[in-house]
Amino acid sequence: MKAHNFYAGPSILPQSAVEETVKAIQNFANTGISLMSVSHRSKEFVAVMDEVQELFKELLNIPNGYSVVFLGGGASTQFAMVPMNLMSKKAFYLDTGAWSTKAIKEAKAFGEVEVVSSKDKNFNYIPKDYKVPTDADFMHITTNNTIYGTEFHTDLDVSIPLVADMSSDIFSRPIDVSKYALIYGGAQKNLAPAGVTFVIVKDELLGKMERHIPTMLNYETHIKKDSMFNTPPVVPIFTALQTLKWIKEKGGVEAMYKMNTEKADLLYNEIDRNKLFKGTATKEDRSIMNICFVMNDEYKELNAEFLKFATEKGMIGIKGHRSVGGFRASTYNALPKESVEALVAVMKEFEAKH
Amino acid sequence: MKAHNFYAGPSILPQSAVEETVKAIQNFANTGISLMSVSHRSKEFVAVMDEVQELFKELLNIPNGYSVVFLGGGASTQFAMVPMNLMSKKAFYLDTGAWSTKAIKEAKAFGEVEVVSSKDKNFNYIPKDYKVPTDADFMHITTNNTIYGTEFHTDLDVSIPLVADMSSDIFSRPIDVSKYALIYGGAQKNLAPAGVTFVIVKDELLGKMERHIPTMLNYETHIKKDSMFNTPPVVPIFTALQTLKWIKEKGGVEAMYKMNTEKADLLYNEIDRNKLFKGTATKEDRSIMNICFVMNDEYKELNAEFLKFATEKGMIGIKGHRSVGGFRASTYNALPKESVEALVAVMKEFEAKH
Repeated sequence: MKAHNFYAGPSILPQSAVEETVKAIQNFANTGISLMSVSHRSKEFVAVMDEVQELFKELLNIPNGYSVVFLGGGASTQFAMVPMNLMSKKAFYLDTGAWSTKAIKEAKAFGEVEVVSSKDKNFNYIPKDYKVPTDADFMHITTNNTIYGTEFHTDLDVSIPLVADMSSDIFSRPIDVSKYALIYGGAQKNLAPAGVTFVIVKDELLGKMERHIPTMLNYETHIKKDSMFNTPPVVPIFTALQTLKWIKEKGGVEAMYKMNTEKADLLYNEIDRNKLFKGTATKEDRSIMNICFVMNDEYKELNAEFLKFATEKGMIGIKGHRSVGGFRASTYNALPKESVEALVAVMKEFEAKH
Repeated sequence: MKAHNFYAGPSILPQSAVEETVKAIQNFANTGISLMSVSHRSKEFVAVMDEVQELFKELLNIPNGYSVVFLGGGASTQFAMVPMNLMSKKAFYLDTGAWSTKAIKEAKAFGEVEVVSSKDKNFNYIPKDYKVPTDADFMHITTNNTIYGTEFHTDLDVSIPLVADMSSDIFSRPIDVSKYALIYGGAQKNLAPAGVTFVIVKDELLGKMERHIPTMLNYETHIKKDSMFNTPPVVPIFTALQTLKWIKEKGGVEAMYKMNTEKADLLYNEIDRNKLFKGTATKEDRSIMNICFVMNDEYKELNAEFLKFATEKGMIGIKGHRSVGGFRASTYNALPKESVEALVAVMKEFEAKH
């Protein structure tokens, strides 16, 4: 039976990226050496690093004046690095779920943090009614909320520097990078296996802090050394390049957006139609990456039964996060439409039984 | 022609670890899903994480009261994390090369740093004539110096907590962990592909700082969550487990030490015998992991020619670091004796030509 990988992250990657990584681990670039055992300073790997930066910039249409770096440590390290590098005295955060809550906690160590939250409704919507404080050094958003299944669908226009955690929706749709000061994210959703974090940053914003910043936590360190200040995570960076090549071949982020919208529509339509289920996120803020749904109130007792039923039919990773319950189907770039069709078929079959 | 991998890091790993990683990337633990795309919270990966921690403790005979965690960010991040977590006012560092110099730079942001250095002789020896300041919070050493080819051959006995960067010689010989307060290292030499850092820490030393420590930089965060506070670097951790299994199968760290000593003796004997070459490190401090040598003064002009000659015969990564020049053969655990024999043969052949 085919496994349909709906994991929220680490999650499904393009098959070509998996296969190219396997080949490189067996023999990297005809060196006779494994990708896992090759020096990051070898000309073959330096070429990979150069190409991944170029293609990253090309696919997101990143303007001049921005740098792209690849770091270790995970997006959770960015929660502290962002305020450490950009916050003199105050920042403004939208609190749209568990990840932004964690980011806010870290920022509070570096100054005053003003927060507008959607916690009042268990984060089932994106706040829209707020005033951006003009005395804040930056505004921080989490563009997609994996746990609660909400997402910003447009790039915000704000008068202060905008910082975005795009861990779970980078490359899923076209974005206007010029509207952001800094974009970061763990790569383990749409890009690569866990272990590498990307940062896109507007150069002119850096180097202005008075506080001490440890070398490894200073963006300038990594920009100056082209992500080679220390040994970078070689394998995930190689895989990221293969994923970007796949995105380009498929038609870029516009094509990704079209495919992702189709998949999401398919599943949301079934959730809305099927008598057993209902979505948890406010319709206008529904994520196209993480689709959260629960049993309708009158069928609540079927929750465990549906999970078992779907799992037995090859739907992997659809258990919802404990904060929301129910189910979550993550439909990242690399998830084929047939997996969504298979899940919809399982939902219909389960409905017919009840 | 066979490639002999003498890279200083990332570097050669056991073939079984490479092969098991390939299999898992194709289909992890019979899940039908790639190791790169499996949730770190899946029971299959949680089992890997549990096993790697257990085997790590078993092979190094780590006593109770110590924790082992696996982090992202590289050993360079540890240069700041160590003083952030352990230094109230003062620390004592032995400066034995480029890596300890970097560690010292980071520590200086957190208090007074007393340093004893071997820089006077381009780091070609390990300082032995010093007094450990009893008012320091800890003493820091780099047990193996990849660039200069020197190494501590015994565990120091000191009266203050001892911290060691063992990035490049962990698992190469038996160590008495009870003599250390904290041991850390990037895994990309004897353990795994780049992207994971191990930390062995005596629990009772933590939680005593007054300064703010960002959550991700606090060892206690990761200990409490069994290295699962955030998404860990899944692939390198899996490979590390395979490497540890290989070490155990070969007879543990005692067996590694025997093999490493044999390989190092073979090469040092040739360096000392061959009229063309000489070693750069003081004999008593010679590393069994990174063997540095240069042309004898009267043959200096043959440097580039030997590098070309050896490279053409499949010796990969033997160019010395620019700080020392000449050549460096890294002879980590997984490097087979036949690779050292091949290099010795090449040195003899080159000598016969001149």
